[in-house]
Amino acid sequence: MTIEVVSENMSHGGRQLVVRHASPACRCDMTFSIFLPPQSEGGNVPVVWYLSGLTCTHANVTEKGEYRTACAELGLAFVAPDTSPRGDDVPDGDGYDFGIGAGFYVDATEEPWSWNYRMWTYVTDELPRLVASEFPVDMDRQAITGHSMGGHGALTVALNFPDRFRSVSAFAPIVAPSQVPWGQKALTGYLGDDRATWRKHDAVALIQHGARVTDLLVDVGTADQFLEQELRPELIERACADAGVALTLRRQQGYDHSYYFISTFMANHLAWHAERLS
Amino acid sequence: MTIEVVSENMSHGGRQLVVRHASPACRCDMTFSIFLPPQSEGGNVPVVWYLSGLTCTHANVTEKGEYRTACAELGLAFVAPDTSPRGDDVPDGDGYDFGIGAGFYVDATEEPWSWNYRMWTYVTDELPRLVASEFPVDMDRQAITGHSMGGHGALTVALNFPDRFRSVSAFAPIVAPSQVPWGQKALTGYLGDDRATWRKHDAVALIQHGARVTDLLVDVGTADQFLEQELRPELIERACADAGVALTLRRQQGYDHSYYFISTFMANHLAWHAERLS
Repeated sequence: MTIEVVSENMSHGGRQLVVRHASPACRCDMTFSIFLPPQSEGGNVPVVWYLSGLTCTHANVTEKGEYRTACAELGLAFVAPDTSPRGDDVPDGDGYDFGIGAGFYVDATEEPWSWNYRMWTYVTDELPRLVASEFPVDMDRQAITGHSMGGHGALTVALNFPDRFRSVSAFAPIVAPSQVPWGQKALTGYLGDDRATWRKHDAVALIQHGARVTDLLVDVGTADQFLEQELRPELIERACADAGVALTLRRQQGYDHSYYFISTFMANHLAWHAERLS
Repeated sequence: MTIEVVSENMSHGGRQLVVRHASPACRCDMTFSIFLPPQSEGGNVPVVWYLSGLTCTHANVTEKGEYRTACAELGLAFVAPDTSPRGDDVPDGDGYDFGIGAGFYVDATEEPWSWNYRMWTYVTDELPRLVASEFPVDMDRQAITGHSMGGHGALTVALNFPDRFRSVSAFAPIVAPSQVPWGQKALTGYLGDDRATWRKHDAVALIQHGARVTDLLVDVGTADQFLEQELRPELIERACADAGVALTLRRQQGYDHSYYFISTFMANHLAWHAERLS
């Protein structure tokens, strides 16, 4: 695979890159961002994967996430993929919550989505191999996090690959897509009506069926407009309690669903990951 | 004057607001952002004014400036105005460097600009009075900074009102608009050909003619694409040396003109201001 560096800017002593590449998984060009901290000049550094939420591209967290200060201090690379395939040939759904900008980190089996909408393969296989081959990252020290739909992505990827990640956290994640409107729409649309195929993509269901991570950090704002209908953190709280998974769930007073919330707690999440990556 | 709160988000323990109001100075609606740190719950806090560069609105620094962590820690309010009048009735110039998004912090005397383009009065009079009347800021503890055209604004406002500001800094400022293409185009367009009227809006000329600030912090990137033609930091370096003004000019290796540069040094500038505001 070849990559095209769309932009490169020095920032916080490191390098912030935006990269485009032809994606065999998604059958279109895909764009992601990667921050390389100053420590990467001296060798491979641990890498944090950040999966974004509905409507986002790599750009939202890259511009608003405020992760570079902590990544430069802690010596972490930070990779932010897109949230879906994109392009004139990529079919789109109806609404902001299905189709372009809303890939939900699954490999679609339903038509017309199955040709391009293969974000599971993209974020779990293609992109890690590409990043490992092109950049100074230590694939034995990986962490994963994400926001909202991307929090769902981070949790389900970590629960499916427990040996790959040393740590996992999430900001305002969808924890039980099978039980909430956003998730039911997306999983029905991409995977069809057979709920057995949904389980691999439902963090609460995965934990209930034996999937495990060592520990888990989740922040959610009490003023999040999606808290009660879409996020329902009490479901993962109960599942982790029943399963004996060490969950740190923090209900942050007064915070909403925006990047103003994410950026507030980003440095704290990165420090939590760095502890487990060192 | 009445204000409309367009948005309010909790962030870093404080409140990030975007505010719209009818502006008598600019004869249109104007929008600015203000961050109120948690310390403002207990009384008036010092205020940092941030003037933005060409093409920007309040939103650029609000989203990409990464000032909230330091402002929350140091107890600073942070106000970011727009860079020009805006609206269907506001005349626009040709190019990104004149007209809307490029008010240059002057009161235009030339037509058709003089009706709306009154950014000098807006940032030195109308907005400070509005902010002081509506928000818990201590107008005896003010600092000012800005980027590029806004660095020019910060320097010239501080040099014209030396008793108002306890500190002034700038990121990649235009220091001598009378001597560079951006400045010559703007000052000719807004103020006409009589260069005597330009002096008040040229930091280097002001210093050469006796205007003073106690000290001054300026960062500029060595990879800034506008360094040699538009910014020319050597001109203020020489003027400050000749005048005995304590200038800290840092040429930051490898940094460009973008918010990746600004956000890297924002916390350092805010700490520098906080020392002088306490």
